[in-house]
Amino acid sequence: MIMLSRTKQPNWKAIVKEFEGAIGKRGVVQRKEELLTYECDGLTSYRQRPKVVLLPRSTAEVAAVVKICDRYQLPWVARGAGTGLSGGALPVEDSVLICTAMMRQILNIDLENQQVVVQPAVINNWVTQAVIGAGFYYAPDPSSQIICSIGGNVAENSGGVHCFKYGVTTNHVLGLKLVLPDGSIVDVGGEVPEQPGYDLTGIFVGSEGTLGIATEIRLRIIKQAEAIRVLLADFTSIEAAGAAVSDIVSAGIIPAGMEMMDNFSINAVEDVVATNCYPRDAVAILLVEIDGLEVEVAANTDRISAICRQNGAREIKIATDPEKRALLWKGRKAAFAAMGRISPDYYVQDGVIPRSQLPYVLQEIENLSQKHGYPVANVFHAGDGNLHPLVLYDNSMPGALEKVEELGGEILKLCVAVGGSISGEHGIGADKRCYMPELFTETDLETMQWVRQVFNPKELANPGKIFPTPRTCGEAARGKLEITKQFEGVEVF
Amino acid sequence: MIMLSRTKQPNWKAIVKEFEGAIGKRGVVQRKEELLTYECDGLTSYRQRPKVVLLPRSTAEVAAVVKICDRYQLPWVARGAGTGLSGGALPVEDSVLICTAMMRQILNIDLENQQVVVQPAVINNWVTQAVIGAGFYYAPDPSSQIICSIGGNVAENSGGVHCFKYGVTTNHVLGLKLVLPDGSIVDVGGEVPEQPGYDLTGIFVGSEGTLGIATEIRLRIIKQAEAIRVLLADFTSIEAAGAAVSDIVSAGIIPAGMEMMDNFSINAVEDVVATNCYPRDAVAILLVEIDGLEVEVAANTDRISAICRQNGAREIKIATDPEKRALLWKGRKAAFAAMGRISPDYYVQDGVIPRSQLPYVLQEIENLSQKHGYPVANVFHAGDGNLHPLVLYDNSMPGALEKVEELGGEILKLCVAVGGSISGEHGIGADKRCYMPELFTETDLETMQWVRQVFNPKELANPGKIFPTPRTCGEAARGKLEITKQFEGVEVF
Repeated sequence: MIMLSRTKQPNWKAIVKEFEGAIGKRGVVQRKEELLTYECDGLTSYRQRPKVVLLPRSTAEVAAVVKICDRYQLPWVARGAGTGLSGGALPVEDSVLICTAMMRQILNIDLENQQVVVQPAVINNWVTQAVIGAGFYYAPDPSSQIICSIGGNVAENSGGVHCFKYGVTTNHVLGLKLVLPDGSIVDVGGEVPEQPGYDLTGIFVGSEGTLGIATEIRLRIIKQAEAIRVLLADFTSIEAAGAAVSDIVSAGIIPAGMEMMDNFSINAVEDVVATNCYPRDAVAILLVEIDGLEVEVAANTDRISAICRQNGAREIKIATDPEKRALLWKGRKAAFAAMGRISPDYYVQDGVIPRSQLPYVLQEIENLSQKHGYPVANVFHAGDGNLHPLVLYDNSMPGALEKVEELGGEILKLCVAVGGSISGEHGIGADKRCYMPELFTETDLETMQWVRQVFNPKELANPGKIFPTPRTCGEAARGKLEITKQFEGVEVF
Repeated sequence: MIMLSRTKQPNWKAIVKEFEGAIGKRGVVQRKEELLTYECDGLTSYRQRPKVVLLPRSTAEVAAVVKICDRYQLPWVARGAGTGLSGGALPVEDSVLICTAMMRQILNIDLENQQVVVQPAVINNWVTQAVIGAGFYYAPDPSSQIICSIGGNVAENSGGVHCFKYGVTTNHVLGLKLVLPDGSIVDVGGEVPEQPGYDLTGIFVGSEGTLGIATEIRLRIIKQAEAIRVLLADFTSIEAAGAAVSDIVSAGIIPAGMEMMDNFSINAVEDVVATNCYPRDAVAILLVEIDGLEVEVAANTDRISAICRQNGAREIKIATDPEKRALLWKGRKAAFAAMGRISPDYYVQDGVIPRSQLPYVLQEIENLSQKHGYPVANVFHAGDGNLHPLVLYDNSMPGALEKVEELGGEILKLCVAVGGSISGEHGIGADKRCYMPELFTETDLETMQWVRQVFNPKELANPGKIFPTPRTCGEAARGKLEITKQFEGVEVF
C-alpha cells in the first residue's frame, strides 16, 4: 500500500482548467446537481460524490485526462453505463470520475473474420443489433444488456444466460486499446486470437478499472444458430431440479443457457409481469435454452425433457417461435426488477459453486435466511453453478443493511467452503473486497497486488476496489465499508 | 534488463550439495553424458548444455531448488517433456535445468464437476486415457500428444487439431499451483472457472517458463461426443480449398477440427505412411472432423460436403468408424515426421492469419519459397488460420540454416502484415523473439516486461526467452541467436 504524502488540498481550479483544455468545457461536469447521477452505480447502498466528472470523446482525450490525474496524483474512477452491481464505479472522495459515455461508436464490423471493434460506451445489445441482419450476434448477455456498456462488461468480465455454452466476456474479447494509469496507450491482443507473450488482454478483462481504461474493444461475434427452443420444466423440489441440471450436463448436453428460479421468485415475477407460464405452485422451475441445427435441437429437447421427467418434473413447456420463447424468458429477465416491486430494497449476491453442491447450498441458504429473518429469493445460472440469491429488506429500518450484508457474507463463505467462488459475473468492486481473504491466501492476494502495482503503481486508478484493506475490512469496519479520506498523508483509496 | 554484478564464478560444489540436500542425490544430474539429453528441446538447431539438471518430485522440492537458485542468483530453465518447437526449454550457459519429469501423478479425478488435477509431467494423452472409460476426454491435442507433457502445454499454451471448436490450453486450465521465481508457492484459479481478481491463471498459461513453474494443474475435461465423422475433400486449387473453409465457417458450422495439407505434404506423407486415402494429384486436401449428436453430425456432414462440392471438390471421403477415421488422420498426424524422411532437416513455422487471407498468404509463401530456393510444405489448422509452413533444408550445407531462418522470418512478417500473429501454439521461446517487434510496439513489449519484472524481477526464470534484446536481435545478430554469456557483470539471459 503506497502513501501519498500530500500536505495540501489540490488546486482544483487549476486542475479543472487543465481538464477543460484537454477535452473542452462541455466535457467537464462540476455542478452539484449534475454530479448526483454519478454518486453510485447499480449498488445504490453506497454513495460518494466525485469532485468532477469528465466525458472524454477519444482515446487521446482519455489519455490526456489520465495524464493530468497522474501528474496531480488525483485518484480517478472509470465508469461506463453505471449498471454494475458490486460498486465497481463507486467514486471516492475528491476523485475524478472518467465516464466513457460519449464514446459510443461502433468503429468497425468485419463479418468475414467475425469481429467488431467498439468504443467502450457502446451498449451490449447494440453489438448484436448491428450484426444480426447478417446472421451474427454477440454472445455474453447480462440481464442488463439493453443498458450496460461493453466497457463495463470488460471491466467486470460480465456473464449472462448464454455464458454456460458460450463463455463470459473474456472469451469474446480479442483485443483492447488501453490507456494505462500513467496515460500511455497500449494495444493488447489483436485480430487473431492467438497472440504470443503474456495474455494481457486476459488480465485486463475483469480487472474492474484498476489497471486502466479500455478505449477500443475488439469483440468476437458468432453465427446465430439455425434453431432455438426454450424448455420450461416444473419441479416439486429443489433437489429434483438440481439433479436434472447435473444429469443434463452429465449426458454431455451443453444447453445455450440453463436457469433455475425458486418458488419465491416465480411468484414475485408472476405478480409483476404475469407471464402466466410459470406454475405458481412449483418449488423450482428450470428454463433451458437449446440452440444449434434444427435436428440437433429437436434431439436435445427430447433428451432434456426425458431427463427432467426422470427427475420428477410435473410439466414441461416447450417454446419454438420467437414470441413464445421471449415469453418464457420474460419472467427470468424481469426477476431482479420484480423484487424491487415486492420489497423496498434487495441485495443481490453472486456466488459460484460446483454444480454438484447445488441442493446442499440451496438448503443452507434457506437455513441462513430463516436464521437471519430475511427472505431470500433464488434466481440463478444453474448450468454454471452461479447463484444470485436476492435478499429482500427495507433499508429504512435501522441496521437492516448491516444485517443483510452479514447474511450475504455468510452465503459467500458457504460458496467458498464447498469449493466455489465469491463472484461469478458482477465483480468484487467495493462490495465484496472484504471476502477476498476467504477465497485467497495472503500470498495469492499479494501476487495480484504485484500485478496492480506494475500497471497502477500510485494506486490512483479505482482505489479501494477488489482488494481488502485493514482499514475497511478489519473487525471494527465489518458491516460498513468506510470510504476513506485521502490526502494529508493518509492512505489513498 | 537487470544486471547481475557477479565478480566470480558461483561455487558449484557447494551449490550442488545444497541441491542434493533439498531433493536427494538421485535428483541431481551432473554427468556430462547424462546432461546431453537436456541440451535442446524439439528445436534442435540450438543447443546449450546446462550446468546441472534437477529432478524434483513435489511442489515442496521445486520450491526448495528454486529458492536455492534465487539465493545464488543462478539462471534456471524449466523443462517438461522437451518436445517444444520454439526452444522454450533451451538452457543457457551455466544454468540450472529444472526438469519436472518425476512429477507424473494424476492427483485427482472429479467426474461430476468434470475436472482432473495433474502434476506437470503427466503426458497430454494420459489425461484422456484416465477418463475415457467414463466418457470424457481432454480436448487440446497437439500432434505430440503421446509424448508432450501437460506442464509444457501450459507453458506454451498448446493447441491442436481440436482447438478450432474447443479452444487452446488456456481455455481448459481451471487452476494452478505455482512455484514463483522467489520460491513462494501460490494457488491461482480454482474448482469453478469464475474467479474474481486478476486472471493470474490466464497470464501464467503461455508465459513460457518465465513466470515460474506449475506443479499442479487443474484441467477441465469434456464429455465425448455421441458421434464423430471425418471428411476428406480433395481440391484442385488452394483458393478453392480456402474458399470452402470460409464458407463452412460462414455457414455457422464449427467442426471439431479443420485441417489443410498441400500437394507437397500429401505426397510426402503418402510416401512414408501410405494411407492410400490422400489423392496424390490433389493440390490441397481438407480434413474436417465433425462431432456432436448423431443427427447433428449427419446433417453437418451433408452441409460440409455440399459446400466442398460447390467449391469444386473432386471427391469426398467420409469415415464414421474409428479405424477409418484414424486412417484419414494418420497422414496429417505423421506430416512432420514425414518431412524428416524426405529432407535431412526442416524448420517449422507457426504463423497465424485471419482466415480471409488464406489464399493470398499461401500464394505469397510459395513466392518466398521460390525466391529463396527452399521447398515449403504447408500443413495447417485451416479453421484457425494457424499455418505450419515446413521449410525443408540440409543443415550440413554451410549457411543453410541462416537462409531458412530468413525465409521463416519473412513468412512471419507476412502473417503480421495481414493482421495475424507470429505464433499460434508453439510459443516464441528462443526462436522467434526477434520477431516480437514486428507484432508489438515498444510500449506493448514494455508492458509485458512490467509483468515479467514483478514475477521474475531477477530474470533468473528462463532468461532470454520471448523478449527481444539488442544483443540477440540487433542487425549484427540477425540469423544467428547467440547464447549470451552471463556472470562477470554482463547482462543475464
